[in-house]
Amino acid sequence: MNQVTAPAPMQIVLGVDPGFSVTGFALVAKAQRITVLDCGYLKMSAQKTLVQRTGQFYAFFSQKIIDHQVTHIALETSFLGKNAQTFLKLGYLRGILYLLAEQHQLELSEFAPREVKLAVTGSGGASKDQVADMMQRLFPTLSSLPMVERADATDALAVALCGLWNQQSYLQRIQR
Amino acid sequence: MNQVTAPAPMQIVLGVDPGFSVTGFALVAKAQRITVLDCGYLKMSAQKTLVQRTGQFYAFFSQKIIDHQVTHIALETSFLGKNAQTFLKLGYLRGILYLLAEQHQLELSEFAPREVKLAVTGSGGASKDQVADMMQRLFPTLSSLPMVERADATDALAVALCGLWNQQSYLQRIQR
Repeated sequence: MNQVTAPAPMQIVLGVDPGFSVTGFALVAKAQRITVLDCGYLKMSAQKTLVQRTGQFYAFFSQKIIDHQVTHIALETSFLGKNAQTFLKLGYLRGILYLLAEQHQLELSEFAPREVKLAVTGSGGASKDQVADMMQRLFPTLSSLPMVERADATDALAVALCGLWNQQSYLQRIQR
Repeated sequence: MNQVTAPAPMQIVLGVDPGFSVTGFALVAKAQRITVLDCGYLKMSAQKTLVQRTGQFYAFFSQKIIDHQVTHIALETSFLGKNAQTFLKLGYLRGILYLLAEQHQLELSEFAPREVKLAVTGSGGASKDQVADMMQRLFPTLSSLPMVERADATDALAVALCGLWNQQSYLQRIQR
């Protein structure tokens, strides 16, 4: 007698690398195999106020979440760099993603940049170019991305993959 | 012949002193004189996740904005303290207020803490207690506030007043 098992629910992860100028994003899904549903970036004009850009960011990702029936959001943790005000403002966009997670009942995971690089390239100290090259090798159709914002999009793709892997092997990962 | 002039549109300012534990807020309006419509604080349980608290913060202030027909939001500018992660997380709540400003077409003003203290007490180096005492003197009905979160509410009230004064004498203020 064959055993019939229900298919696992589809996991659709939105990975985001937020910025008030350029925000990289990627949507990945896992059914039989991992597919990239969408990968690119949102550019927001410096002519617009921060209030306008915050609204634009919210509207853009609300739509992506609805269109692709996203189940999880994945983000990199943020560390204080040279500019404290830039760091604070990154928090505005992260707050919007937290709100979207609440409004659409999504799980939200955060990964340290080192953890993302290690997971996708095998080295925690990999450069952005090395991450981009690895993403391109895994998903050859990405080569249609314009080179200039490529690293923003591939960073978001790397974190989205971490979100997907994290869901799939959650128990193993928290034990390591 | 008497001249008839249209009354100036009512200004209703929401002042907020955000925090993931306690957020002070105040709603002030100016018609004939300045009145405090509401003043208090939102406490969010540490048992809830940041995602849940971000959602609660958004819902709470959405409702206040609708109930009181708010026209402006006033905030203190934020400076990096000892804990960078606390500073980043404050950004989440500030981002929510930016989003609410965009969604409800409100003006948003920010004031340096020194500027707020100077405006309400005459001294840029005033303590939280001095700000609270001055607010109590201006609005004696505030004495019903519980003492423990009083400073959060009165700080928000002070920044709300700055928002109101700023609207009323905008041209003079930007020239000083």
